[in-house]
Amino acid sequence: MSQQAKDVRDGPPGALEGVRVLDFSHALAGPYSTMILADMGADILKVEHPGGGDRTRRYTDGDENFSPYFSSVNRGKNSLVLDIKQPAGRELAHRLVQQADVVVQNMGPGVAERVGLGYEELSALNPRLIYAVVTGFGRDGPWADRVGVDPLIQALSGSMSIVGEPGGSPLRVGYSVVDLVGGLYLAVGMLGALNERHTSGKGQLLDISLMEAQMALMENAVVRYLATGKVPQPVGSAHPYQTLTRAYEAQDGWVMATLSVRNFRAACEVWGHREWLADADLQARPETRTEELVPELQKIFRTQTRQYWIDKLVPVGVKCMPVNTIAEALETPPIVERGFIQHTEDANGRKLRIAGSPLRLSRTPGRVRKAAPVLGEHNRSSLREWLGMGDEEYARYEAQGIFKQVDPKIRGFW
Amino acid sequence: MSQQAKDVRDGPPGALEGVRVLDFSHALAGPYSTMILADMGADILKVEHPGGGDRTRRYTDGDENFSPYFSSVNRGKNSLVLDIKQPAGRELAHRLVQQADVVVQNMGPGVAERVGLGYEELSALNPRLIYAVVTGFGRDGPWADRVGVDPLIQALSGSMSIVGEPGGSPLRVGYSVVDLVGGLYLAVGMLGALNERHTSGKGQLLDISLMEAQMALMENAVVRYLATGKVPQPVGSAHPYQTLTRAYEAQDGWVMATLSVRNFRAACEVWGHREWLADADLQARPETRTEELVPELQKIFRTQTRQYWIDKLVPVGVKCMPVNTIAEALETPPIVERGFIQHTEDANGRKLRIAGSPLRLSRTPGRVRKAAPVLGEHNRSSLREWLGMGDEEYARYEAQGIFKQVDPKIRGFW
Repeated sequence: MSQQAKDVRDGPPGALEGVRVLDFSHALAGPYSTMILADMGADILKVEHPGGGDRTRRYTDGDENFSPYFSSVNRGKNSLVLDIKQPAGRELAHRLVQQADVVVQNMGPGVAERVGLGYEELSALNPRLIYAVVTGFGRDGPWADRVGVDPLIQALSGSMSIVGEPGGSPLRVGYSVVDLVGGLYLAVGMLGALNERHTSGKGQLLDISLMEAQMALMENAVVRYLATGKVPQPVGSAHPYQTLTRAYEAQDGWVMATLSVRNFRAACEVWGHREWLADADLQARPETRTEELVPELQKIFRTQTRQYWIDKLVPVGVKCMPVNTIAEALETPPIVERGFIQHTEDANGRKLRIAGSPLRLSRTPGRVRKAAPVLGEHNRSSLREWLGMGDEEYARYEAQGIFKQVDPKIRGFW
Repeated sequence: MSQQAKDVRDGPPGALEGVRVLDFSHALAGPYSTMILADMGADILKVEHPGGGDRTRRYTDGDENFSPYFSSVNRGKNSLVLDIKQPAGRELAHRLVQQADVVVQNMGPGVAERVGLGYEELSALNPRLIYAVVTGFGRDGPWADRVGVDPLIQALSGSMSIVGEPGGSPLRVGYSVVDLVGGLYLAVGMLGALNERHTSGKGQLLDISLMEAQMALMENAVVRYLATGKVPQPVGSAHPYQTLTRAYEAQDGWVMATLSVRNFRAACEVWGHREWLADADLQARPETRTEELVPELQKIFRTQTRQYWIDKLVPVGVKCMPVNTIAEALETPPIVERGFIQHTEDANGRKLRIAGSPLRLSRTPGRVRKAAPVLGEHNRSSLREWLGMGDEEYARYEAQGIFKQVDPKIRGFW
């Protein structure tokens, strides 16, 4: 069921058809939020600086001229290279702002204001504009001038302190959970504001702090600490409430088994430990005996394969699933048969398979609409679509050098 | 700046003022999505079954009659106890559906249809209805009848295979990332559909698979594998691209340091290893020497405190942050001074501090509007508000036993 979506006009419309987003963000949180909006059919104009554009274009994996990282997160968007530091570039940016529903940026502290793209200035140009900023610690407040990137906030927020083996080293989640969840909250905030604008006719400022978004994700660890004073600790592969629910190592890999007081009795039979049934306390509250049980169970699980345990335990009410690699996960029936992986081909003919959209809306499904843009691919077409700009006017702007790409090694853009 | 928000009418309005959500979901993904909508001012009517309601009401931490878990995720909502299996209960549910903008449910496979709350039936009653379902593996497809809860999907999706020490055991993220991200995608989908309805006037079905939402979160691991064929591995505390960016253990705890080719030279001076500056290859591509460098750096970091390294390295361009506990994270200036932690007090006088909303919209800020409901707290008031139901009519329904609470140990509700 996978599809090759070269053109935004193929297939059903999206829920955000007609919504125009001017996207000055780079790296991950901002681009992930506009990826979500693009999958829902919004028109995303990614404004990139002349020095190579979004730096994740240079996060290559083997092929030096192609970034799977960039191409996954920026599918379905249009790219405009624009030097906003030149007066003509700024003027053009302001013309685009007047046509935009949403502006997104994650520039450093004070940069947007310096280049003429601050909230006050843009909302005066377009009072219906929703202006979204994502920063490490918030647009105001005591750390407004500090940079907070994903690894730093995984550390600072306490996430690393509750990911790991009990007593072991603190660990980063193996994906950029801070940036991605920040991107999801950005999308939620922008959509909430768009919804509100239908009534009020007014735009507003959205100020997302990655630190706050991450702490909102960890709301349970936060409330457990604030309610009990006990500092949450890493729990390995276990669930913090159902402590026997964890990964057990079988002969050929790991299985996750959800064990609770409800299914423990039946599992004892499968494990060949009927004598445990005689222990009334163990039957009533098996979780209180986690420390002594886990090494015993680990021994039992090692005697057979993953599939053996799944076949024996699932029928008696113990839900079990293999601990898959990413490769194995992509081969599972629900991923394969619902056509979750999508194919793209960009303007240079580079083909790629990427994760699709989970936003399965019946009339306006989220979907990958086309490949990520080559740098500057849509300079002419987007200016024509957004501003009705003809070739002559385009040539006049071009002559001022505001579309000209320069060496990515030159720093100091945004 | 913390606030006691006993009443939804205190403070500025939300972006979703006037949006009515009938919420049949329990546990985490569904409730997290409606928590986000409640923080944005939507009117959430949480319909709970008579056998104790949402089972997370019984996830207590010390105090047997109070669940911080439930109270954090269900703040700002109203609770209606309703036996939808009785004809009068079902009829009342249908009357509420006719007033709703959104219905959310995460009932088991086929349950909603059996109790008269399936999509076809409800959308016929209310064509403007947005009907959101969250399941483990999708509402259709090969695993539509399987239960997929957070720990199982952390295993199956490959998340556990990339969280952990290299060569170590697979680990669960220490919070229910699958459910929470599923909840965020639910919120995004519902908001997208609400936005689209302003134009079309029509509702639709939203079908969120937790498995797909989690794979969409891990899009980078997915694309890296699909582009290169290399199966992503756990990387401990390191960033998969910037492999020297990781946590290092100091005398009194861990620090996260973001090391790259840009700041490595300056860091060598701080570490007292000027001889490394003479190694041209090390200077040009320090990341390729990660394996030999990390043990050396680990030795160096252990000689001083966290604060020492932060004070020395930050000025030379190496961003560093302490690896905090949850307790320490809550004391950081951006969390304290932006008033992120909110206070609530419920109808039983239970006070609680919980994580607030990161949805800082300037005119319609997301915020905790009131405490989580006591079970059935809003039976009378919500039926009055949604249906204009007077005392006499309420009494007639009540006489049929559809509001009567029963022992939570009785199973088989939904």
